Formats: sequence, structure tokens, C-alpha cells
Amino acid sequence: MEFKIKESGYRAESITDNGNRFLIGNGYMGIRGTYDEYEKEHLPAINLAGIYDKAGEGWREPVNAPNVCYAFLRVDGVTYRLPENTESVTEHFTELDYRHGILSRETTFKTRRGKVTYRTERFVDQKYIHLIGMKYTIVTDFHADIELVTGIDGDVWEINGPHYDRLTTTQEQEILFCQGITHEKQTQVWAAESIKADFPLEQKQVERDKKILRRIFFVTEVGQEYKIERWGGIYTSLDGEKPKENLEDEIAQAVADGYEQRLKAHKQAWENLWENSEVLIEGDDTAYEALNYSLYHLHCIAPRHSKSMSIPARGLSGQTYKGAVFWDTEMFMLDFLLLTEPKTARTFLKYRIDTLPGAKKKAQDYGYQGAFYAWESQEGGFDACSDYNVTDVFTGRPMRTFFKDKQIHISAAVAYGIKRYLDLTEDESLLEDGGAETVLECAAFYRDYMIKRVNRDKYELWDVIGPDEYHERVNNNAYTNRMAKITFEFAAELLKEMLSDTEKLGWVKGLNKEEAERLISVYIDSAAKLYQPAPGEDGIIEQFDGYRSLEDASLEEVRSRLLHEKEYWGGAYGVAAHTQIIKQADVVTMLNLFADEYEEEILKANLDYYEPRTEHGSSLSACMYGMLMCKLQE
Amino acid sequence: MEFKIKESGYRAESITDNGNRFLIGNGYMGIRGTYDEYEKEHLPAINLAGIYDKAGEGWREPVNAPNVCYAFLRVDGVTYRLPENTESVTEHFTELDYRHGILSRETTFKTRRGKVTYRTERFVDQKYIHLIGMKYTIVTDFHADIELVTGIDGDVWEINGPHYDRLTTTQEQEILFCQGITHEKQTQVWAAESIKADFPLEQKQVERDKKILRRIFFVTEVGQEYKIERWGGIYTSLDGEKPKENLEDEIAQAVADGYEQRLKAHKQAWENLWENSEVLIEGDDTAYEALNYSLYHLHCIAPRHSKSMSIPARGLSGQTYKGAVFWDTEMFMLDFLLLTEPKTARTFLKYRIDTLPGAKKKAQDYGYQGAFYAWESQEGGFDACSDYNVTDVFTGRPMRTFFKDKQIHISAAVAYGIKRYLDLTEDESLLEDGGAETVLECAAFYRDYMIKRVNRDKYELWDVIGPDEYHERVNNNAYTNRMAKITFEFAAELLKEMLSDTEKLGWVKGLNKEEAERLISVYIDSAAKLYQPAPGEDGIIEQFDGYRSLEDASLEEVRSRLLHEKEYWGGAYGVAAHTQIIKQADVVTMLNLFADEYEEEILKANLDYYEPRTEHGSSLSACMYGMLMCKLQE
Repeated sequence: MEFKIKESGYRAESITDNGNRFLIGNGYMGIRGTYDEYEKEHLPAINLAGIYDKAGEGWREPVNAPNVCYAFLRVDGVTYRLPENTESVTEHFTELDYRHGILSRETTFKTRRGKVTYRTERFVDQKYIHLIGMKYTIVTDFHADIELVTGIDGDVWEINGPHYDRLTTTQEQEILFCQGITHEKQTQVWAAESIKADFPLEQKQVERDKKILRRIFFVTEVGQEYKIERWGGIYTSLDGEKPKENLEDEIAQAVADGYEQRLKAHKQAWENLWENSEVLIEGDDTAYEALNYSLYHLHCIAPRHSKSMSIPARGLSGQTYKGAVFWDTEMFMLDFLLLTEPKTARTFLKYRIDTLPGAKKKAQDYGYQGAFYAWESQEGGFDACSDYNVTDVFTGRPMRTFFKDKQIHISAAVAYGIKRYLDLTEDESLLEDGGAETVLECAAFYRDYMIKRVNRDKYELWDVIGPDEYHERVNNNAYTNRMAKITFEFAAELLKEMLSDTEKLGWVKGLNKEEAERLISVYIDSAAKLYQPAPGEDGIIEQFDGYRSLEDASLEEVRSRLLHEKEYWGGAYGVAAHTQIIKQADVVTMLNLFADEYEEEILKANLDYYEPRTEHGSSLSACMYGMLMCKLQE
Repeated sequence: MEFKIKESGYRAESITDNGNRFLIGNGYMGIRGTYDEYEKEHLPAINLAGIYDKAGEGWREPVNAPNVCYAFLRVDGVTYRLPENTESVTEHFTELDYRHGILSRETTFKTRRGKVTYRTERFVDQKYIHLIGMKYTIVTDFHADIELVTGIDGDVWEINGPHYDRLTTTQEQEILFCQGITHEKQTQVWAAESIKADFPLEQKQVERDKKILRRIFFVTEVGQEYKIERWGGIYTSLDGEKPKENLEDEIAQAVADGYEQRLKAHKQAWENLWENSEVLIEGDDTAYEALNYSLYHLHCIAPRHSKSMSIPARGLSGQTYKGAVFWDTEMFMLDFLLLTEPKTARTFLKYRIDTLPGAKKKAQDYGYQGAFYAWESQEGGFDACSDYNVTDVFTGRPMRTFFKDKQIHISAAVAYGIKRYLDLTEDESLLEDGGAETVLECAAFYRDYMIKRVNRDKYELWDVIGPDEYHERVNNNAYTNRMAKITFEFAAELLKEMLSDTEKLGWVKGLNKEEAERLISVYIDSAAKLYQPAPGEDGIIEQFDGYRSLEDASLEEVRSRLLHEKEYWGGAYGVAAHTQIIKQADVVTMLNLFADEYEEEILKANLDYYEPRTEHGSSLSACMYGMLMCKLQE
């Protein structure tokens, strides 16, 4: 089956959506599915993994590279570009080959003297990760004076910019360069561009508006295809020394190899990925394509090039969600890569291990021992989440939210990810590389967070937010308590393993036998006594203490209470906050993870109870219901 | 010194304020300082202590009796009443003799043929608590045809009424009767009225609009004073059997004794109260009068007639605050009566003892042992406080508040009141009458509310609201923790006392020696381990965990952030909620109670720190600062 999405006709109102829909990427960078002629108001972006910058009063966000895909067309001295010249378009389509990560676009413009067909193609190289291959094909039905303008647009789209303190441009040996220096850490981001054609053309270099451009002139024969190959490259000072020289070498080599050869190797690299990951569904082509299209996006953003990097919530599609890594990585993305590319999965987990100091600092800042991972994690484990994450639509005031302080289940996601890796790969090197220490620090955090009512003989976790963010500061969220329990159990298991072999005791620096023994009993006690909400008489597990006493209004009823379409459903006074309506899978997420522990009728009863009460206000919801339903049908 | 407030001139816009300002009362009833001719739109009320009713969807509230003070004047067939005939007024004053609880009013109306001076006087009898004495004096400067209309207005003002399912009126032997039957409990409220004059007058009885009235006609000689004595009476089926007959007898006796004799006895009763309670301040008459005026109000509402009754937050001035009893009684009013009338103080505390079942029920409903007293207590300890006590001015939606669920310091106020009573009176009969059991139940509640972080060796009280209601759901409020501690200590002391004498062990039914010994060690442990926020390096005691990390914006700055003059400062998103601005004395309340335990510089440092950060948005604020300042000046 071909994996292709083709959209015919041009609609300016789809620019933003198509930027995400037609994304291509290779984990090092993601390029939005925008057209080459777009400038920043249409949100083009070459979004880079793992480089963050904070400029001005806004939040820290990932950096977009100077746009090396920038290009537009002039015919007979008149510019033809979208969306400005939509009225001149006679035919148009966009096509994403998502089996191979190739984005094409073809537009036929009607000009005063005749028609020009302009075709572009681009791929982000899966093998040479710093490079973007581009190809332009121009055909006219008259002798046209063509001018193709290409180059680098340093005036990039950004939410909280400008991130480049300085932008400098140069041309050396037919290569255009643009160097940006980020504000906060003075990271150098180098962009380079070159072109090659097998026919004679005239060139002129210009610089304006943070752009370095070349104007390419030629005259067409009727009906003849004019092809221009183009290479863009990105290299930063985080990637190694001499970024400029490296770029220069890489581009020279690519030009020498030629576009078609490189494209072939790129396609083969994708075929190799699918060989190991394509999901076959017989009898339902829509499901088959949709599922593999989702996997395509994971392939585009998987950080194969790194040994310590994770995937932000919005992937590499831009700066939305601050390029931050959430619990999504471990709980929603990890399994796919664990089963197909364990080395890449390891990269996610190594990122968590390497950000342990940030997690320990966060725990300490809140008065806790152990590791409290960032809710929105950037480099070094810095928590990008604000205390005021939502704006009140009625007053325009920022609302105090508690995602950062109370969503403590994040640390368990990290420990659980390490456990999954170990279970599936049996590769203990991750434990030695800091994994064991990470798990112990997560367990220490939960141990320290736990309280005990003086009169009761059980432990509890109070004042948390579970996956369902519409209910803040609740006690004994079933999901959180269960995840803390598995963290304790895993910590105790690891410690036992470490005691079995003196060398393994070295996994955690400074840990001795006595301390390990003491910790084993601490975590066995913690796991045994931490209260786990059990199914009630009707089989329903209460999401948190008192959930079932909340108003049991229907989703329609609760939605009808909205006074403003954009008002927040949660917080202290949102329409869902004091009802049983939840944002996303919560108990069901837990049941999906631990389905083996429950009778089928319990799973079914909870699915039936929670599904109609779930708004599915997050992409992390339907999938959990879907997976649990699949398990029930087995 | 005469204790008088005189207001000259008439201003309709003062009607509501003056209703409170010129209140008279005797603990059984309070009569708002409104004029006899007012009907319900001007909020006249004979507010009864301890009778509540819920009608319709509104909250339960105290009941106002049928208005037996209703009367108005007609001259030459034309009605003269306020505020309708304000333009006919040539002279007017109102005077409250707050030494004796006598309210007078004199108005001179200019009529077509001449002037009429109309003087009324009323007192709520301190001795015969069911009776209201009234006197009318009329003088004219021409031969006027006077008609005085008196009677009972059953169409009473109420916030959430109507509370009377049925109203019936009768006349028997010159006495007018009106009987109302309350909706919820079918309590009978009887009102009666009679008049007496020493000159001949013609009478005619009429009934209309829930009123039973008598029209009294006479013709005046120029310059002669015409005096009419009048008695009103209220009796309910809660006061005893045969309320109507009792009223009849009481009024007959009052008529026989005569107004002046009864007034004299009433004044003597007030003199007796002042004998024992007047506060003398030399050199500052304003302070002297103001302080005694405040005491006057306490005298008006002290339930001397009962053995088990408390004082609502708004006294007997109407239905505002639902006639509910708050922590104010024990923490702000008790001491005055303890020092002047310990028997009346005992009445407050007996009310708490008698509402223990309600407090135990409330604790149980929230999943706790012991007694959790009602935040807004009505009869039987019913908590009148709603979960949604504030309306959001921006959305019109009710806001979830936590006064009822989290202001746990209320139970300690009850225990502390009992302790104060015992310390000052040494009267152990209250302990035997349920006081000891009450204290133990309050201690049991705090014991059960306490938590311990699994890793720490101290107890804590989490998720509470302290006196400062602008900060909800905080941990370790210094005031609350200190009050819980004294509750534990007092419980342990009482148990030791009970163990010292077998008879005293009988103070708490079913308590045996072993259990008492066990509880002593439980409460000693509780008091010892409950965390008490200590002064920091700068001497400041943090109001709750994390208070000092909140934004330290000035009161002016925080006020300037208001977008609506009536928006709530507290709750989740109010302007004060995430700053150090507090509603009322909190740490300072604690320091005032336990001043002996702190060095003078600590007291001073906290006064200086908290005063500028206090909005004083409650009458329970300035007094605490004032008292602590007084202590510092000793």
C-alpha cells in the first residue's frame, strides 16, 4: 500500500493545519508542511530538537532555525506566490508521501503570457540528518522569463522571540550561510543553502530583511522541464565543533552525490524503518492508513541521532507547548519504539536519567526528598510549566494552576518507563548508566510525599492532580497511587538485584549493603501500605476520594453551562470541576496498564462508567479507552 | 454619663443603617430601630432568638414575629407617615437611650390646619421578656381630628419567606391577636397588642393585608398632651404551653401595673446590668461611649432567659447571616459575659453542648471521628453554611467555598470556651452537664484530622482555612494548630481530673478508667507532636506553610487590581489569594490569646508585620490587633 496524502486545490485557511499535517522530519529537525514562499506570518518552521531559548518576558521555547527552504517564483518580472496570488492558480495540489517523508507541491499559475507549472519536492534526510534535499521543476507553455529566488530567511516565526541576538549572513563558494546566536546561551545555529542546475542560469546575490537570497534567471523553452536541485543544511554549536565547516563539507558531498542518489538512500532508510514497524490491518484500509500515518509522525520525531533526548508533546512541529517533554513520552510513545527500536527508546530514558539533577532540585524546592520530574521538561530537566498556565476568559487574569506542583505521577512514569525497557530488553546497562539511581530517587520522592492519618494504618497521597486535570488537588487519585506503588515495588526489586551481585551495587554511587537492605524494607512497607482505591460494590473504582459524591451531570448538561466557548472546564470554578465529568482517561489509563490484575467485568464496568463521563479534551484519552476495549475483545 | 445617641432630621436613606443602630432587645427578641409606620419594604423586624424556618429554595433563617409595633397617624383624615410624608416634617429627631434600651422618636408634621407633634417611645422589657412597652404622645396647635391606627402587621419582612404557612387574627377583650404557624416545624408564633388611654376615645377594628388594626379617634384641645399607652407581646409554642393565654395574662398584668411603673422596673434592670459591666474610661469620652455602646448591644442580645442558647453573628438585628452562631460567640463575646454574668456565659456553652450530636454528625459525614461543629450553627447544630457561599460577580455563578468543610478551628473555639468558663468560674457542673464529653469529642476530631508525613516525626493539620478566609485550603495554619493543641491539653487535663475522683469519671457516660488512661496518653502525644509554626529569624510566625513565599504586594496594590468593586478577594483566584494580604487577624489572634508564651519583641514584630498586610475585611480583626497592642503597652 502506498502511504500518501494528497490535497488538491489551495485554501489559505488550511495553512496552519497543513503545517502540522504535512510535517516531515528526522528527529534532528522537523519542517512544517508550509510552502517555500511563506514568510513568518504563515508559520513556516525548521524546528530543532533540544535547543531552547528564553528571550524577553515570555516562556522558554525551542528554537526555529533560519529558514533554508525559503524560495519563490517570478515570471516576466511578476511575483507568483501563495497565498498572495491565489487568484492566478489554475491547478494545485500538495502531496505527502508518508512512507518516505517526501513532501511535494505543484502549482500552475496563469500569467499574462501563458501558464507556468511550478513543482517543488523536499525531504529531510534520514541518513544525513543535517540536510534537507529540495528539487524545483518548472515547465511553461510559452517562452517565459523565469526568476527563482532562493536563499535563507532569518526572519523566522517564533512565539516568544526574537531568539537570535545576532544574525550574520555570508556567501562562500556558491553556498549561502546564515548564522544566528541565541539569546540565552549564545548557541550558534548555522544554516546553509546551495543550488545546482544542469542548465545555464544567471545568479545575483541580495540581502534584505534578515534574508540572504540569490536571484536565478533563465528563459524557458515551451514544454521543457527545468530542474534545479537545492540543498539546505543546519548545524549548531551543540552538534560539535566547527559547525560551519561541517556544513560546508556535508553540502559539498551531497551536491557531488546528487539529489536523486541521496533521495534513493533516504527512501531506503524509511523502508528499513517500516520493515520493522509497519502495522498491517486487513480489511480496514482507513484504519490501516491512519495508524501508520501516526507511526510516520513518531518516526519523524524519534531522536535516533542522540543518546539522550526525548520527544516534546507537539513533536517537532513548532514552538507550541514550549517544545517540552511531558509524561506522554513514557506513557504513550515509549512502547512503540521499545518494540521496534529499543536503542531509540533508550534515548528517551537516558534523557530522564540525565535530567535527574533537575528533578532532584525540583523536589527539594518543594520540600521533598528524591526526584520530582518536571511537568514540562526542557533541557537539564528545567520545568517550563508556569504556576499560572491558563487565562481566565472572564477577567483576563492568569489563573493559578497546579499542573507543575501537583501532577506528581510524572516521576512514576519515568520509573515505569525504565521498568518497561528492562522488561522488554533485559539490557541492564541502562540501570548502570543512572537508571537504577533514577528509580530509587523516584521512589524516595513518593515515600516522602506520602502521609498517614495519625489514626489510620495506611499511607495516602494527598493533594495531587491525576491525568484528569479538571479536578485539582485531590486525594488518593487511583492512577497516581497505583503508579507510586509500582515505583516502590520496582525500587525494591532493583535493590534486591543489586544485593545479589556486588558489582551491581555499584549502579548507585555510595550505596552500601546496609542502606540497600534498609531501603528494601522501606519500599516493601510503602508498596504494601499505600492505599489503593478498590472497586466498589458496583465494580467502579473511584477516581479519587469523593469523586463519586460529585454532581453526576451529563457531558451535554455540563457543556451547556459554558458561558464562553473558550472558558477553562477545570480549575476551582470551571463547569467540570464539581461534577464527575473528566477531561481524559484516568482510572481507565490505570486499568489499561494493569488490566491483568482485574476481572473482566471490573474492566468493563469502569469503561462503561467513565467513558460517557469523559470529555476527551486531550489526545491522551481515546487511545487508552481504545486499548482497553481491544484487550476486552481478545 | 448619659448614654444617648440622638439623630436630628429625617433621611430616608438611613432607614436600613438606623435599623441596626437604634436596635433594642432583651435576648429573647430584638427590635430593629425602625419607625412604627414602616412596612416590610423598610425592614422593620421583631427578630426572635432560636426559632428558625426554611421555606422554599432559600436557606433556613430566623423568624421575625408579626409586627406588634405597627402604628401610624392620620390628621383630619389625611395620613402622616414616614418616609412618604417627609415634605410635611418641620422637626424630627430619633433618640436611643442606650443606658436603658429606650428608643424615642418625635416628629412634627405641618398639616393644612396646623402642626401636630407625634412622639413615640418603646422598650423591650428586660424583666418581662415577652413584652414591648410603647407610649404615644400627641400635641397639636389647633383642634385636630386625630386618628391613630395601631395593631399587628403580619406581613413581615423576610429574606427567604414567607415563613408563616397560615396567619390568623382575632380580637378578644380589647386585645388583638395574630398567630403565625411556621412552615417547617409548625411552630406557633403568637403576637398580641393592647392600648390604654386616660381620655375617652372611639375605636374601630379593621383587618386587611395580613394586618389586624384598630382605628382610634379623638379630637384635641390646643396644646394639650394626649398620651396612649400600648403593649405588644410575643409568645411562641417553644416558650411553653398555652402561649395565647400566657400572653393575655402578661398583657393584662402590664396594663394593670401601668406603663410608667413597668418602665421604671425595666430601667432598674438595665442599671443592674451596668452596675456590673460599665467600663469606665477616663479622659476619652468618645472611647468611653463607643465601648459602652458596644456592650449595650451585647446586653440586648444576651440570652439571659434561656439555659441553652447562643448569639448569632448579627445578633437579633434581622435575618442577615441566617441567625447563625459562628466562632465569634466563644472567641469574641464570651469573655465579656464570663466576667460580668457567668450564668449567661454558661448558656452559650450549654448551647454548644446541646448541639454536640449535630457536631458529631457533621464530623461523621466528612469521615472523621469526634465533633466538628457547624460553621454556621442553627438549632440542633445544623450547619447552615452552604458549599457555595459566594457568587462570582463576573459569571454570576455560585463559587465553591470551603468555610463549612475546612474551617476546623471552630471545634477548638468551643473547647476553649469551656476551658475559659472553668478557669474563671471553677464551676464543674458544666463539665458534668456534657462539657467534659464535648471537649473529648473535639479532641477526638483533631486527633483524627491530624496527619503525619510518613517520613517525619511530627503531626500536621492539612487542608484547612484559618481565621483569614482569603487563603483557602492551607496547611498548618498557626492559629488552628495552636487551638488544636490547647484542645488536646485541656482534654488530657480533664481526663486526669476525672481519674482523680470516681464520681467525675461519670462526667462522660461509658468512659472507664482504662480508656481514660489510654486517652490521656493519646492527647499528650497529640499535643506534644502537633507542629507549631515558630517565629523565624526575624521573629515572624508564618500564618501557614508557604505564606511568606506568596507575593508581598501592598494592600493598595492589591486593591488596585480589583476589576469589580464587589468581587471576592479570596477563593482560588481573588486578588488577595496569592498574595500576603489577609482578610483579618489570624496569627495576631493567636498571639493575643497566648501572649504570655512569647517575648514582647516577637509580639511586636508580628503586629508590625501583619497589620499593614491586613485588609480588616471583618469586624473580628481590628479588636484583636487592639487588644494585643494594649497588652504590649502594659
